[in-house]
Amino acid sequence: MALSLSLGPRVRKSPFFEAARADGLAAASVYNHMYMPTSYGDPAAEYDRLINGVAMWDVAVERQVALKGPDAMALARYLTPRNLDGLKIGQGKYAPICNFEGALINDPVLLQVSDDEFWFSIADSDITLWAGGIAGARGMNVEVFEPDVSPLAIQGPKSFDVVASLCGDWIRDLKYFAFRDFDLQGIPLVVARSGWSKQGGFEFYLRDGSRGEELWNIVKEAGAPYDIGPGTPNYVERVESGLISYGADTDPSSNPFEYGLGKFMDVDQPHDFAGKKALQAIRDAGVTRRFMGLLIDGPDFTGTNENRWDLSWNGANAGYLCASAYSPRKQSNIAVAMVHVDAIESGQRITVHAGGGDRTAEVVELPII
Amino acid sequence: MALSLSLGPRVRKSPFFEAARADGLAAASVYNHMYMPTSYGDPAAEYDRLINGVAMWDVAVERQVALKGPDAMALARYLTPRNLDGLKIGQGKYAPICNFEGALINDPVLLQVSDDEFWFSIADSDITLWAGGIAGARGMNVEVFEPDVSPLAIQGPKSFDVVASLCGDWIRDLKYFAFRDFDLQGIPLVVARSGWSKQGGFEFYLRDGSRGEELWNIVKEAGAPYDIGPGTPNYVERVESGLISYGADTDPSSNPFEYGLGKFMDVDQPHDFAGKKALQAIRDAGVTRRFMGLLIDGPDFTGTNENRWDLSWNGANAGYLCASAYSPRKQSNIAVAMVHVDAIESGQRITVHAGGGDRTAEVVELPII
Repeated sequence: MALSLSLGPRVRKSPFFEAARADGLAAASVYNHMYMPTSYGDPAAEYDRLINGVAMWDVAVERQVALKGPDAMALARYLTPRNLDGLKIGQGKYAPICNFEGALINDPVLLQVSDDEFWFSIADSDITLWAGGIAGARGMNVEVFEPDVSPLAIQGPKSFDVVASLCGDWIRDLKYFAFRDFDLQGIPLVVARSGWSKQGGFEFYLRDGSRGEELWNIVKEAGAPYDIGPGTPNYVERVESGLISYGADTDPSSNPFEYGLGKFMDVDQPHDFAGKKALQAIRDAGVTRRFMGLLIDGPDFTGTNENRWDLSWNGANAGYLCASAYSPRKQSNIAVAMVHVDAIESGQRITVHAGGGDRTAEVVELPII
Repeated sequence: MALSLSLGPRVRKSPFFEAARADGLAAASVYNHMYMPTSYGDPAAEYDRLINGVAMWDVAVERQVALKGPDAMALARYLTPRNLDGLKIGQGKYAPICNFEGALINDPVLLQVSDDEFWFSIADSDITLWAGGIAGARGMNVEVFEPDVSPLAIQGPKSFDVVASLCGDWIRDLKYFAFRDFDLQGIPLVVARSGWSKQGGFEFYLRDGSRGEELWNIVKEAGAPYDIGPGTPNYVERVESGLISYGADTDPSSNPFEYGLGKFMDVDQPHDFAGKKALQAIRDAGVTRRFMGLLIDGPDFTGTNENRWDLSWNGANAGYLCASAYSPRKQSNIAVAMVHVDAIESGQRITVHAGGGDRTAEVVELPII
C-alpha cells in the first residue's frame, strides 16, 4: 500500500516547493532535512523531456555548506582527497569527502565563490557537522554554515536555448562545472553548467530563498516555447548514465575507488587531509568490489526496486543491486550495482535476486549509455 | 493535495518497517536517513491508546552513535556540555550536544553500555559525522560508528504490565533512563525505561536487525490482553507534554538555555567540551526567547500546522509557533512555540498568524499538562 508523506515544520520546504506542488507534484522523499520532489505522476513524460527536450527540477535539497574566512581554503583542502591546486573562482570541481577510515561520506561539487568563501554542494549527509567539528577541533579560523542558496536545475538538450534566452548566449560557452554570478530580473543567482544528468544543463543557484516562486515562474515562462515541464532527478536516466547516488549506492564502508573515483583521489599530494593514511592503504590494497552496470534478462521492469536486491555468482553472494529500471533507449532492463571483483572478472552472467524472482544479468562498465 | 512518499533503497527501512506496514501504517516521514512511521490513519485511537492504554511504536529512527575504545569516555565528555561524572553502566543521561558556537545540534540520551562503549541515542542529525570528525581531528583512540541497534517503544500506562509479562517484574523498579541487557526468547535487547512521551513506558533496543518482525509480533501478542495497538511518537501528547522535537522546534542558532536545558549545561565544569566558551557567554548574556506553551483561542483545530506560524506582540514579530493541535485533555487548542522574552514577560496575549487567519493566545509554561 502506498504511504503518504507527512508534512510538518520538522522537514524544510524548498523555496520552489509550493510552486512545484501547484504544478502537480505527486511524490517526494526527504534529503538533507528538506522535501525532495521525486515524481509528477508521469514518468514517461518526465523521462522524455529530459532526453529530448527540457525539464525544470527543484533540487534545493542540494544544500550548500559554506566555508568562509582566513582558513577556508585550508579547511577545504583538509576535507577532500582531491588536490585543490588550480581551484579558482568560477570553476567548480567534483570533490568527494571521506572520513578518517577512508569511507565516502559525501560526493559534492566544490565552488570557490570568492577569495575566502567556498561552497560544497552536497549529497544527503550533514557535512556542516563534519566540517564544523573538524574546524572547531583544529582551532581553525573559519565559519562553517549553510547559506541561503537553493539550486533549480534546468536539464535536457533544449536547456541551452532556455537558459540563453534568460541569461544570454555566453552560457553556451560555459565549461562543465563552470559558474558565474548573474542578476536575473533582480533575482541574485549563481548560474552553473551542471546538474545530475548527462543530458546537458544548468543549475540556477538561487541566493534569496524568498524569491523561489518568482524564479520558478520565470523559468517556466521562458521554457514554454520549448515545452518545458517539471521533473525531478531522473531514476532511469541516472541508471543509464551510471551517476552515483550517495546513500542509495553506498554503505558505511564504501570507498571512492570502488566507484571509479580513483582519478580524483590525490592520496600522495603534499597537503594533509582527512582519511589520507586510510586511503593510501585502500589504494595499495585494491578494491574487492566495483560499481557496475547490469543488463538484466526477462520481462521488462514496470517500476523500480523498493529494496536492494542481492546478487550471486558461482554459488556465493556477489554484491547488491542499487537501482534498476527498464531503459527505453537501451531497450533492456538495466541496473547499477556493487559487484564483487571476482564475479566481474569471470566475465560470466550473475544472478539477480529480484523482487519477482531470480533473473540473470550481464555485468557491464558504466555508463550503460 | 497529499503527496506520496517514494520508497527506494536510498532511505533505510527499520527492522520493524514491514511489520508496521502489515499492521496498517498509513503515513511516514524520514528521520536519520530512515523511514519514520507517523500515522496509522486513526489519530484519536492512537492518542487514546497512549494516554489510557498501551501503544507500540517503531522508533528505530532513533539511531545509536557508538563510541568505543580507550578514549570513548574522553570523547563523550568532549561532546556534551553536561558533566558526565557519575555516569555508569545501566543508567542513561540526557546529554544535549552543541556545536562550537553553542547552538544545539542534537539532544540525545547517553547510555554507557560497557567500560569502553557509549551510545548516544540521537535525534535527526548526523552525529556520527560530528563525533567522528572531532575524534579524527583530535587524534583520539576511539571508534565512532552506528551499531545494529533499533528501538521499539512500548508506551502508555499499561506498558508496565505488558513489559513485565515479557521481562519480569523487575522492570517496574527501573528508574527513568535506567536500562539493562535482556534476552527475550533468544532476541538480544537492551530494555530501557524511556520513550518520547510522558505517559510512562519502555524502549526495547533491538540488537539484531534481522529479528525485527519477530520482536514486533512478540510484543503485539503480549500486549493483546491490554488492547495494545500500533502508534507513533504522538503529535498531540508531545505538545501537551512540551517535549522538544529537534528540527521542528530548533533553528541553526537555537541554544539549550532557550529550551530550559540550562540545568544540564555544566559550563563551568573542569572538563573541556565543544562549545564551552560560547555557552559560557550565552549563559552570561541570558536568553532573548524561550520555548513555551500556548493556549490558542477560536474554533478547535482539526489538524496540525504544516508550516511554522509567526507570532506577534505589540506590533512586532514575537517568535514562531512550532507545533499546534487541539488537546482533548486540556480541551483547548495548544501549541509549543519559541517566544520572545519581552512578550512572555508582558503577561499579555500574543497573536498567532495561523494558517486559517489570526488568533490570540495565552503564553504558558511547559508542560501544558
